[in-house]
Amino acid sequence: MDDLQTYVMTLGKNARRASQQLATLNGATKVHALHHMAKALRASASTLVAANAKDILAANEVQLAPALIKRLMLDDKKVDAMATGIEEIAAQVDPVGQVIEGYVRPNGLRITKTRVPLGVVLFFYESRPNVTSDAAALCIKSGNAIILRGGKEAFHSNKAITDIIAAALNEANIDPAAVQLVESTDRALVPHLLKLDKYIDLVIPRGGENLIRAVVKDSTIPVLKHFTGNCHLYVDRGAADMEKFVREVCVNSKTSYPGGAVCNAVEHLLFHKDVAAALLPKVCEDLIAKGVEVRGDDRSREIWKKGKPTSVEDWDTEYLAFIVSTKIVDSMDDAIAHINEHGSHHTDGILTTDLAAAQKFVQQVDSASVMINASTRFADGGEYGLGAEIGISTDKLHARGPMGANDLTTYKWVVTGDGHVR
Amino acid sequence: MDDLQTYVMTLGKNARRASQQLATLNGATKVHALHHMAKALRASASTLVAANAKDILAANEVQLAPALIKRLMLDDKKVDAMATGIEEIAAQVDPVGQVIEGYVRPNGLRITKTRVPLGVVLFFYESRPNVTSDAAALCIKSGNAIILRGGKEAFHSNKAITDIIAAALNEANIDPAAVQLVESTDRALVPHLLKLDKYIDLVIPRGGENLIRAVVKDSTIPVLKHFTGNCHLYVDRGAADMEKFVREVCVNSKTSYPGGAVCNAVEHLLFHKDVAAALLPKVCEDLIAKGVEVRGDDRSREIWKKGKPTSVEDWDTEYLAFIVSTKIVDSMDDAIAHINEHGSHHTDGILTTDLAAAQKFVQQVDSASVMINASTRFADGGEYGLGAEIGISTDKLHARGPMGANDLTTYKWVVTGDGHVR
Repeated sequence: MDDLQTYVMTLGKNARRASQQLATLNGATKVHALHHMAKALRASASTLVAANAKDILAANEVQLAPALIKRLMLDDKKVDAMATGIEEIAAQVDPVGQVIEGYVRPNGLRITKTRVPLGVVLFFYESRPNVTSDAAALCIKSGNAIILRGGKEAFHSNKAITDIIAAALNEANIDPAAVQLVESTDRALVPHLLKLDKYIDLVIPRGGENLIRAVVKDSTIPVLKHFTGNCHLYVDRGAADMEKFVREVCVNSKTSYPGGAVCNAVEHLLFHKDVAAALLPKVCEDLIAKGVEVRGDDRSREIWKKGKPTSVEDWDTEYLAFIVSTKIVDSMDDAIAHINEHGSHHTDGILTTDLAAAQKFVQQVDSASVMINASTRFADGGEYGLGAEIGISTDKLHARGPMGANDLTTYKWVVTGDGHVR
Repeated sequence: MDDLQTYVMTLGKNARRASQQLATLNGATKVHALHHMAKALRASASTLVAANAKDILAANEVQLAPALIKRLMLDDKKVDAMATGIEEIAAQVDPVGQVIEGYVRPNGLRITKTRVPLGVVLFFYESRPNVTSDAAALCIKSGNAIILRGGKEAFHSNKAITDIIAAALNEANIDPAAVQLVESTDRALVPHLLKLDKYIDLVIPRGGENLIRAVVKDSTIPVLKHFTGNCHLYVDRGAADMEKFVREVCVNSKTSYPGGAVCNAVEHLLFHKDVAAALLPKVCEDLIAKGVEVRGDDRSREIWKKGKPTSVEDWDTEYLAFIVSTKIVDSMDDAIAHINEHGSHHTDGILTTDLAAAQKFVQQVDSASVMINASTRFADGGEYGLGAEIGISTDKLHARGPMGANDLTTYKWVVTGDGHVR
C-alpha cells in the first residue's frame, strides 16, 4: 500500500470513528458545537484573511478570471457571513430522531421509520471558501462526519477554515475528525478515496461535468451528482396578457446573480410563435440594456434582427455568463421536447396564464425544479426554506434539487413487539 | 457497435419511450392494466406451467439443489398467487402525484414536493419466477418502465410471464416496452446495460454478493444494493424474565421459512453472560428439535456441550440454511460492536425487558431494520404494510430496508408564483 492509499485509508477510518460519536449526540450538544465553530471563525477572521491572501496571490499569478477571484476572496464581512450561516444551521430543527412515519400493524407490531445520520460524506467542490463551512455545519447538524476535497485554488483558505473548525469541535468534546480536509491536492488520491465504500456512505461531487463523470466512473460509493444547470424559460401562448411579468422574470432569471455565473440562471428563452412578435423584442431589449449578449435562432432573428445567430452547440451550452439564446417554437409540446432533450433537468420554467398549460408543463418537464411564473433563480435551498444547502442535486435518487440537512440523513425501521412471531 | 450493444441500446430507448407514457397515465388506467395483467396470467396458467417445465427439466439435469428447484417451480396455485399479488398492488394508493410537502414561503411563492416516477428501472434478480410479475406490477403502479434480467435457470418461465404481461399491456393501450425481459443470457451484455445512464435511472441488483459487487463496479447508473442478510438476535441481561418469548422468537426467526433460505432469517444468537446459563440450553434444544444445526463459541459450549464449535468464518457467514451459531458476550456494548462489525446491516434484534437497553440498541445498531422483542422474519414489505416489495435495500441512500412502490419514485419541486423575481 503506497503513502496515498495509507493516507486516504486513515481519513476514512477517522471519519467513520467520528461519525459513530456524532450519531449519538443529542441536539443541544450539536448546537453548542456549531455556535462554538461560528465564534471561533469570527475570532480568527484575520488568520483566515491572511491564509486567503496566499490563494489570491497564486490566483493572480495564474491569471484566474476576475469573477472567479471574486468568488475566492475572503474579507471580514464574508467571514462574518460564514459564521452567521453556521448559526442559522444551528437554529434549524434537528433532523436526527424525527419519526418520518409511524403506525401499528393489525398484529400489534409498532413500526416507525426514524431518521438517522448517513454516516460519512465525501464532498468535492470548487473554490468558494464559504462552502467549506456551510458543508461542515450541515454535516455536524445532521450527525455526519465529512471529508472535504475543495478546489486547489482555495487550498490555503480551506485549510485555515477546517483547522479552526476542528479545534472548535475538539473544545466542544466532539471528535475533530468529524470535519477533515484532504490535505493533498494530488489528483492520484481521488480514485483511492472513491473506493472507500467501507468507510464512506455518500459522495457529493459539485462542479464541472468532467469532475462528476470521473467520480461516477471510479466510485464504488453511492454518488449524488450536482451538475450545473442548463435552465430554460418557456413563454407560453397565454403569456401575452402578462408582458410586465414576462419581461421582469426573464431579466431577473438571467441577471440577478453577478455575471450570470450561477447554476439557476436561465440560459435559453423559448417563445411560443403566437406571442413571439409581441414579447420577444421587448425581452431582448431589456436584456441588452442589462449588458446581456442575446443570440437567436433564425425565426427569432426575423422578428428581432439585432441578435447574433445561434449555432447547434448553443442549445446544449450552459453559458454561466451574461449570454442568452432565444428560440421560437410552434407549440408547448415542442418546447417540452426541447427542454427534456437539451436541458440538464435542473430548473426550467413556464410563463403562462393558462392553468391547463401550466399543469401539463409541470407534469412533462423532467426537471428537479419546475417554475410557474417565477424566476429560475428561486431554485435554491434558502429560497425553498431549507436553510443552507450542500448543493442542488441533479440526480433523481435520494434527493432531487436543493439539498438541506434532512437530505443528509437516512432512516431505520424500528419494529417493537411483545414476543411477536410470524 | 456490436450486436449486443445495439440490442441493449434498443432495450434502453424503448424503455425510456414507454416510461414517458407511463408517467402521464392516471391511476385508473394503471389499475385497469394491472387487472388485465392478472387476468391474462390466470388464463395462461397452462402455458406458464409448460414453459416452467423446461426450466425444471434443465435444473434437474444440472442437479440444482432441491430447495432451489422448489423455489423455481410454478404450478396453477403459484400462478394464481402471482395474479393475486398483482391485484393487491393494483389496490394500493397511487404514489404518483402525491404531495410529500407543500407550503407557502413568506414572499408568497407556493412550493410543493410532488412525487413522480423515477423513469426506468433495471432489475437483476435470481430464480423465483413470481418476482418477475411482482417487480413488473410495482413498476407499472409507480409509473416506471422496467428492464428485467432474471436468473438463467428461470429463463423460459420469465420469458413466458413477460410475453403475457407485454401483450396485456398492449391490449390496455400501454406501450408494451414498459416491461421488457433481457432475452439473452449472455453475460457480456451486462456491462453494456450498466452504461445506459442516458436511458436508465436506477439499477437494483438482488442476489449474491459477487453479482452485486460486479454491478457496482461497472455501473454508471445509480445502484441500490440488495445484499442478503447476516442477521442477529441479542438476548439481553433483562431477558431472563421472558423465557417463553425468547425461545419462541429465536426459533421463529430461524425456522419459520422453509430451510431458513431467506434473507431475514436469523443466523447468529448472542447471549448476555448473565442469562446464558438460564436461556441458551433451552433455546438450543428448541432449535435442535426443529432440525437446526447449532454451533457455539467456547463459552457457549461450556454451558451447552452438544453444539459443534464455531470457526472465525462463522461470524461473517449467512448460512441461508438450518444452521445457527451462538456466542456469549460480556455486555450489550460487545454485542453491538459484534453486530456492526460482522452483520450486513439488514435486520438485527434485541430481546429485553429493559427500556434503556432497547433504546441504546436501536440507536447504535447500524441496520435497516432493528427489532425489539420480535422475530427478524418480520423484516418484509408485506409485514410492514407496504404491499409487495421489490426487495430489501441494504443501502442507506434513497430507500433502506423493504422497498415498495413509493420507493420507486422521486419528486419534483413545483414552484408557483405571480411573476415573482428574486
